[in-house]
Amino acid sequence: MGKLLRVNTKEKKFNFEEVPGVYAGLGGRALTSKMILDEVPATCHPLGKANKLIFAPGILAGSPAADSGRLSAGAKSPLTGGIKESNAGGLVSQKLAKLGITAIVLEDKPVDNDYSIIVVNNDGVQILPAGDLVGKGNYAVMESMWKKYGKNVGVLSIGQAGEQCLKGASINQADMNGRPGRAHGRGGLGAVMGAKKIKAIVVDDKGAPRVAIKDPDAFKAANKKWVDMLHTHPVTGQGLPALGTAVLVNVINEAGTFPTKNFRSGRFEHAQDISGEKMAELIQARGGITTEACHPGCVIKCSNVYHDKEGKYLTSGFEYETIWAFGGHTTIKELDDIAMLDRLCDDFGLDTIEMGVTIGIAMEGGLIPWGDGKAAIGLLSKVGDYAPEGKIIGNGALFTGDALGVDRVPVCKKQAFPAYDPRSCKGVGVTYATTPMGADHTAGYGVTANILGVGGTVDPHKKEGNVALSQGLQIATAAIDAAGLCLFVAFAVLDNEDGLPTIVEMLNAQHGLSLTPNDVLELGKSILNNEKEFNKKAGFTKVDDQLPEMFNEKFPPIIHNGIFPLKNCQKPLTFDNNL
Amino acid sequence: MGKLLRVNTKEKKFNFEEVPGVYAGLGGRALTSKMILDEVPATCHPLGKANKLIFAPGILAGSPAADSGRLSAGAKSPLTGGIKESNAGGLVSQKLAKLGITAIVLEDKPVDNDYSIIVVNNDGVQILPAGDLVGKGNYAVMESMWKKYGKNVGVLSIGQAGEQCLKGASINQADMNGRPGRAHGRGGLGAVMGAKKIKAIVVDDKGAPRVAIKDPDAFKAANKKWVDMLHTHPVTGQGLPALGTAVLVNVINEAGTFPTKNFRSGRFEHAQDISGEKMAELIQARGGITTEACHPGCVIKCSNVYHDKEGKYLTSGFEYETIWAFGGHTTIKELDDIAMLDRLCDDFGLDTIEMGVTIGIAMEGGLIPWGDGKAAIGLLSKVGDYAPEGKIIGNGALFTGDALGVDRVPVCKKQAFPAYDPRSCKGVGVTYATTPMGADHTAGYGVTANILGVGGTVDPHKKEGNVALSQGLQIATAAIDAAGLCLFVAFAVLDNEDGLPTIVEMLNAQHGLSLTPNDVLELGKSILNNEKEFNKKAGFTKVDDQLPEMFNEKFPPIIHNGIFPLKNCQKPLTFDNNL
Repeated sequence: MGKLLRVNTKEKKFNFEEVPGVYAGLGGRALTSKMILDEVPATCHPLGKANKLIFAPGILAGSPAADSGRLSAGAKSPLTGGIKESNAGGLVSQKLAKLGITAIVLEDKPVDNDYSIIVVNNDGVQILPAGDLVGKGNYAVMESMWKKYGKNVGVLSIGQAGEQCLKGASINQADMNGRPGRAHGRGGLGAVMGAKKIKAIVVDDKGAPRVAIKDPDAFKAANKKWVDMLHTHPVTGQGLPALGTAVLVNVINEAGTFPTKNFRSGRFEHAQDISGEKMAELIQARGGITTEACHPGCVIKCSNVYHDKEGKYLTSGFEYETIWAFGGHTTIKELDDIAMLDRLCDDFGLDTIEMGVTIGIAMEGGLIPWGDGKAAIGLLSKVGDYAPEGKIIGNGALFTGDALGVDRVPVCKKQAFPAYDPRSCKGVGVTYATTPMGADHTAGYGVTANILGVGGTVDPHKKEGNVALSQGLQIATAAIDAAGLCLFVAFAVLDNEDGLPTIVEMLNAQHGLSLTPNDVLELGKSILNNEKEFNKKAGFTKVDDQLPEMFNEKFPPIIHNGIFPLKNCQKPLTFDNNL
Repeated sequence: MGKLLRVNTKEKKFNFEEVPGVYAGLGGRALTSKMILDEVPATCHPLGKANKLIFAPGILAGSPAADSGRLSAGAKSPLTGGIKESNAGGLVSQKLAKLGITAIVLEDKPVDNDYSIIVVNNDGVQILPAGDLVGKGNYAVMESMWKKYGKNVGVLSIGQAGEQCLKGASINQADMNGRPGRAHGRGGLGAVMGAKKIKAIVVDDKGAPRVAIKDPDAFKAANKKWVDMLHTHPVTGQGLPALGTAVLVNVINEAGTFPTKNFRSGRFEHAQDISGEKMAELIQARGGITTEACHPGCVIKCSNVYHDKEGKYLTSGFEYETIWAFGGHTTIKELDDIAMLDRLCDDFGLDTIEMGVTIGIAMEGGLIPWGDGKAAIGLLSKVGDYAPEGKIIGNGALFTGDALGVDRVPVCKKQAFPAYDPRSCKGVGVTYATTPMGADHTAGYGVTANILGVGGTVDPHKKEGNVALSQGLQIATAAIDAAGLCLFVAFAVLDNEDGLPTIVEMLNAQHGLSLTPNDVLELGKSILNNEKEFNKKAGFTKVDDQLPEMFNEKFPPIIHNGIFPLKNCQKPLTFDNNL
């Protein structure tokens, strides 16, 4: 059993606490959501002293289980006003597990602008003045931290957006090259870290023992099955490693659910220019990396390194959602501009989905022209300048819509929509509306059965089956997030009867438990119930579980040819095009 | 029975409609709130086509009843997201009544930026292109309208703030000198008018008959009693006519409930510099007007005209709430600077309470220094420049707090607090929290019994009695707003057993009814119930009926001497200073 590391950010003090019984056995999202429900007053100001920012490795963290290195960050969200969990890859989760730290809990807030950094290692904890890191972007912060504390330390940091407490602010993690390509992006958690004046957290596991495994043989056997499962599934074994998540551009566009020009249609005429295929071609020609893991032990390796025209590093972790948000949504068709926007988000510490949607809203409001990548770069740069425009843009899509008098803003619970139209991919549309997280595809990725034929098939255009699809996925996802597993393992799990039992075997072998698959699903349900309870206390009602008014607009019917190259569907989907 | 004038702002068409039975007999706030409940989807976007903007004269409008010329404006509020009624004096209400128009209802919205003006007179209705009025402030618009359509026409217009659809935008009314000194200030209704691209509404009653009175003798007798009552009460007969509402500065400061430096204390050391006494002295020395009616037939005459140091017109309708918001709240102590801020608000079309509180939040966030009047003028001017800072400031206190990462923002239901601290004037504090309108002193002015000894006495520092005080006042106020009476008549009504019966006598005599005082209070209750029903449908819960977290801060105890110069209390108040 590990310990909770509680840091009082006002007093610059910390203490280690035995994990109390009420949190025993929890990890990842299960722990962050339970702690927020129990310890954070639901009606508090998200930037006030009563909010807490919690980082928790998953239950499998630090073990050799493939793809188990995701770290959950949780707080009351400055963006949604509700509970938030946002997880990311990087180096921190496994190192915390090795250090025996079940969670870092940031509490209270300083009165003055005295930023700190927190350094956690096998010798203990230091809370140090942030010095000249203040005002710097994540690239500079991470470079500095690796220089000072050693290559390969885990780093969580905020850029200029978090310092300004903007609702679009992310917390970034150093990736395996020490760059801020991984992000706890959604929900503005970087603003909570900024309010608590913590510029960075460094986690170094040098000298720490391995994580104990109660039954090593059973674990090894289960993990072997697990790795095979991930390797042999066409999505996790072929599609994602080959092209990264950007493989989805052509697929989703072909399926007519690639939201274009602020959700006016589901097809972008220039999708090919920003596709995964195009990206892979450019990366290969320019000397980047098409296939990279976001954390040690990942076997899917959907990340990448993208170089500019001169062959110099430009950005990394350049994902489908980012390409859609800055691309199809805004009609920007130059992939290099989109890559620069991704880099700026990583550097300033901004959620790329929120910012891409926001840039589209700025275009809708006439602030910059549709499709103008250079203007978008100029506008987003204002966040780094601490300029008034940046304080609008950096606060996200709804805020920018309000600033500009735009009434077509695709948000649920104030959070911007991801890259699937809820009218032509209703499984994910139900998730946008009903997840306690605010519009979030990762909370219940109905694209699986709606479009990819993974885990069965459910017609994306009809209501039938999509509520059940979303609900089932939301429960499973919550459990996956608690385990600290990458969400993409779901592709394999959904198509393998042996998927969930294998995860359970690893959990049992690591911790000496005798859980059943049903126990794990019950855990998923309890997480969702905790989150919904918090939101109810915060004032959420069923009104907050609705899509915004703009989705009453008639959606242009899409004729598509039924190609879903990620996987050969055994039972080809047939769609009703009469929407 | 009058008619509803419905204007389709998209098609530029109108029609007159017999008042349907469900709205029969209603006027003012009773009508606007019922129509919004019945006709506006509660979850619609306030700037979308489904919202409606309704202007309704009160039930007594157009009659000779003293102080019955207030016009109600209603819509779903862009600021609060809930139902909103905001009433103002000016010339429109009585003219609409004479034209037989029970309400003007603006519906739908144009797709393009094609602004219109609406001209209503005895010959009918014209919807005309706004031409070069677009981009102009309210001073220029009203001057132009009086020049074109004749001195003394009623004008409703929006300035640059309404055009930008900012949440702080007001709808201004030409006062009796054709200046925009009167405002439907609260709740951002100017943004709804801006979304519907209506720059101005001109109402001319030339040639229209008088409003019919069913029993002229009974009406005359009742109105005589009514006028006497207003003339003989110390507040409506002496305090308000002598110094305007600014008479309250010293009173409320003395009572320790004049919120200072963003609600850090209840006393402003420079209150004397911005007091009603000081203002009257300056007005008299510079050739302004200390006592003026906001609409024909007003016998209280609390308005004024304020000149600058050179003796030139600077602003009018310069009120206590404005002086507090830009003064005590921000610690600006130069009355001339505050007067300039008032003028800018009138010209751009901004709510002075919301803007004053917002300027204080900008100071809290470090954007400009505390107490710097010139910096405040510079910042507020950005709204007129359509600049990014203006799009932040013009969207109000909460928005500005969010832009700047400020967690101490005094709002309820997202609307900024008026000029009384809810901790040391709990009667109005209960109103801030519980009125469906968002923090609004006029919805239930507990200052009466809390501070002024009007309508009895209730200790402002204790919980006891203040919920009942606020509830009773909220009901009575809703009825007063339905009648179209100025809220200030409440001072006299609360201290006269014959007050409410006299109002009822006038209503009965005008319309040939046989209402009882109880019927009128039931009307007040039904208005509140309609409003609460709308808000519930819009997603409001009891969480929205709470004061923000900052009011958990300990409030410095205030020692005061119990002087309340507006009225000699028969039973002097005693206060418990142990807060």
